[in-house]
Amino acid sequence: MARDVELLVTGDEIVRGSVTDTNSGWLAQRLAMRGARVRRVTAVGDVADDIRAALREASQRAELVVCSGGLGPTSDDLTAACAAEVAGVELVRDEGTLRRIEERWARRGKPMPPAVERQAWVPRGAEVLANDEGTAPGFRLSIGRADCFFFAGVPRELEHLVDAHLMPWLAARSTRAIVTRTLRCVGIPESELDAALLKLAEQASVTLGLRAAYPETWASLTYESSDVATARTHLAPVVESAARLIAPRCYTTEDESLAQVVGRLCERARWTLAVAESCTGGLLGGAITAVSGSSKYFLGGALTYANEEKTRAVGVPVDLLARHGAVSEPVARAMAEGVRDRVGASAGLSITGVAGPGGGTVEKPVGTVWIALASPRGTVAELQRFTRTDRESIREASVSAALDLLRRTLLEVGG
Amino acid sequence: MARDVELLVTGDEIVRGSVTDTNSGWLAQRLAMRGARVRRVTAVGDVADDIRAALREASQRAELVVCSGGLGPTSDDLTAACAAEVAGVELVRDEGTLRRIEERWARRGKPMPPAVERQAWVPRGAEVLANDEGTAPGFRLSIGRADCFFFAGVPRELEHLVDAHLMPWLAARSTRAIVTRTLRCVGIPESELDAALLKLAEQASVTLGLRAAYPETWASLTYESSDVATARTHLAPVVESAARLIAPRCYTTEDESLAQVVGRLCERARWTLAVAESCTGGLLGGAITAVSGSSKYFLGGALTYANEEKTRAVGVPVDLLARHGAVSEPVARAMAEGVRDRVGASAGLSITGVAGPGGGTVEKPVGTVWIALASPRGTVAELQRFTRTDRESIREASVSAALDLLRRTLLEVGG
Repeated sequence: MARDVELLVTGDEIVRGSVTDTNSGWLAQRLAMRGARVRRVTAVGDVADDIRAALREASQRAELVVCSGGLGPTSDDLTAACAAEVAGVELVRDEGTLRRIEERWARRGKPMPPAVERQAWVPRGAEVLANDEGTAPGFRLSIGRADCFFFAGVPRELEHLVDAHLMPWLAARSTRAIVTRTLRCVGIPESELDAALLKLAEQASVTLGLRAAYPETWASLTYESSDVATARTHLAPVVESAARLIAPRCYTTEDESLAQVVGRLCERARWTLAVAESCTGGLLGGAITAVSGSSKYFLGGALTYANEEKTRAVGVPVDLLARHGAVSEPVARAMAEGVRDRVGASAGLSITGVAGPGGGTVEKPVGTVWIALASPRGTVAELQRFTRTDRESIREASVSAALDLLRRTLLEVGG
Repeated sequence: MARDVELLVTGDEIVRGSVTDTNSGWLAQRLAMRGARVRRVTAVGDVADDIRAALREASQRAELVVCSGGLGPTSDDLTAACAAEVAGVELVRDEGTLRRIEERWARRGKPMPPAVERQAWVPRGAEVLANDEGTAPGFRLSIGRADCFFFAGVPRELEHLVDAHLMPWLAARSTRAIVTRTLRCVGIPESELDAALLKLAEQASVTLGLRAAYPETWASLTYESSDVATARTHLAPVVESAARLIAPRCYTTEDESLAQVVGRLCERARWTLAVAESCTGGLLGGAITAVSGSSKYFLGGALTYANEEKTRAVGVPVDLLARHGAVSEPVARAMAEGVRDRVGASAGLSITGVAGPGGGTVEKPVGTVWIALASPRGTVAELQRFTRTDRESIREASVSAALDLLRRTLLEVGG
């Protein structure tokens, strides 16, 4: 049985919407590895009544409660006091923590502000959990039947505290582990993924989850077992079979981006790369160079937004533009070949399309995009007609489709 | 008095941590404009017991509950049924919605899958709220003393439904209005904004809020009054004075992006624009062309990632690169002038920097970026030394700094 967990997030900045809570998602994924499943996430502001109520309720429902935020030195950091009240104990000063904090300030060579001492006070009976990344320690406190962990809300500190204290604690107690592997795909709708993978998942007693991570679609395979290693071993062949079933649409079964996969394949094939972009205006180059080390294969490219630039920068003939229009197969091909030749790269990748909101026609409505790749394997072009018709979505999907065309071609090359 | 609101988010993907909930933050900010303050956000999975419990509790605590997610056509979309149970009513088919859905599918020329009909079922007594961005309508339902709104979880649909239905509903009922105006700034730390604006805000009885919207900093001025018009009138002169105090760091007092402001100024000055990007690899062009209509002033540019491309595509002399290195003032200037001349634009904007994680030296550590602008007003270059040292942050900040250099120059041009 999975252990039921609730997360409690405190902070005005969270409920006001100034800061997005990314801790909870990270925690949920981490906890699942030890068989702990998040059933509810509650966020409240820095309001003592609300913190106490939420903590009391969570500790009555769940076996494990993980709280983040509100352990700082200022007057709106109320979590430790609220925890003590809900547990019916008083706050006590933890001398070990105080020494640790004082030493930390001494190392920095700065006098310790008096308010910092506040962070050494924890509910009586709590187990103090040392924080090597900041001043405020975490602590574990029993409230009713629930084990409650309290951590700082700064992501770096929270992640450190969870890995240093909560994960080993769970490992020592856990008899279950939930492992999820994700197949990231391009160019296949959720319904098709579902149809392709459902039977396989059922036969292997694996839970299939589908998700639109626009412009991609992701399929997750989850298995629960007695420990992580067993779950991994059970999942591995299922993931492999699933990837084969939806090949070539699945670009990875690991947690990596499409641009990272393309980069790896470029390096393997010893290809260098150049791009020519019209409607995406640089987003394709931006995505490729988001990968550190991309200078090993990415040389550069041309943003040929105006038609004159398509001719000047990558040599698209004027009459080709006049005859077929900028959004056409011949122009996409000429852009890809032109940028490859001029930059002197192994491959040239091009995008030209109607991103809207204006510029659409009956023949070429908004969302019509031509992608071309000129490479040692010849020149190929693909027409995309994206169904989402807002500018941002079309541009994102175009980048994704272009990278995927390159990926599929590189797979054929091998290495 | 502000109206207390609770948000309820449903979806396995949220509590599992596969998807980050960004709807809640957007909603909180939106609701504040109508005097509604979010006190608690609860997220539960696609589990009927959990949805019912969370909805029941929220409706007992808050006057207004906004639920998102779980209104789709599949079997794990449980929200409408749970809402009906909690309200003690049955589900009924809304014929108007069914027709609307059928028409939507007919327009696409596709047969409607039978499961889609599910989305036309709403709790009896609910007011159906038309969704122009998707299939699932929203609805409003009274549960106890609380008004509960239910919306699809897809951000685009949620935002449409909130603006089309919830905001006008709130406006009609609200006796208080909280109006916030935001000054968006580039190149000024929060502490300086605070020092510059605090006295002004206090004198005008306006609440000052500061926020790092990296790479920008935003200062919000908030005023609560009996209605939106009164609050707006009170705020207008305060916003103007504040903008003057921090000019030229504030690029807008409206809800528009830096690229939009730059585009407007380009059009006013009748300038055309070209870019040459090294470490940003296309993100600058991508940001400029995110603005629809940018083809009126953006011609194109060069992604000169490799040094050879800096020479070939925009004519940076080889010996300049050898003497000063790619990340240097002379190279940034040569890139800006080269791309302007070759593209034949009024202005050329360039970026060359060390985005890391590798490539930093003692003299030019990671985060060192040169920006240059070659324009009818001559060529200027600015050195940036960004303190955040992760690749993504450096690249984003570089784009922002480049656009802002162009903006400040265009302001001098007038029009």
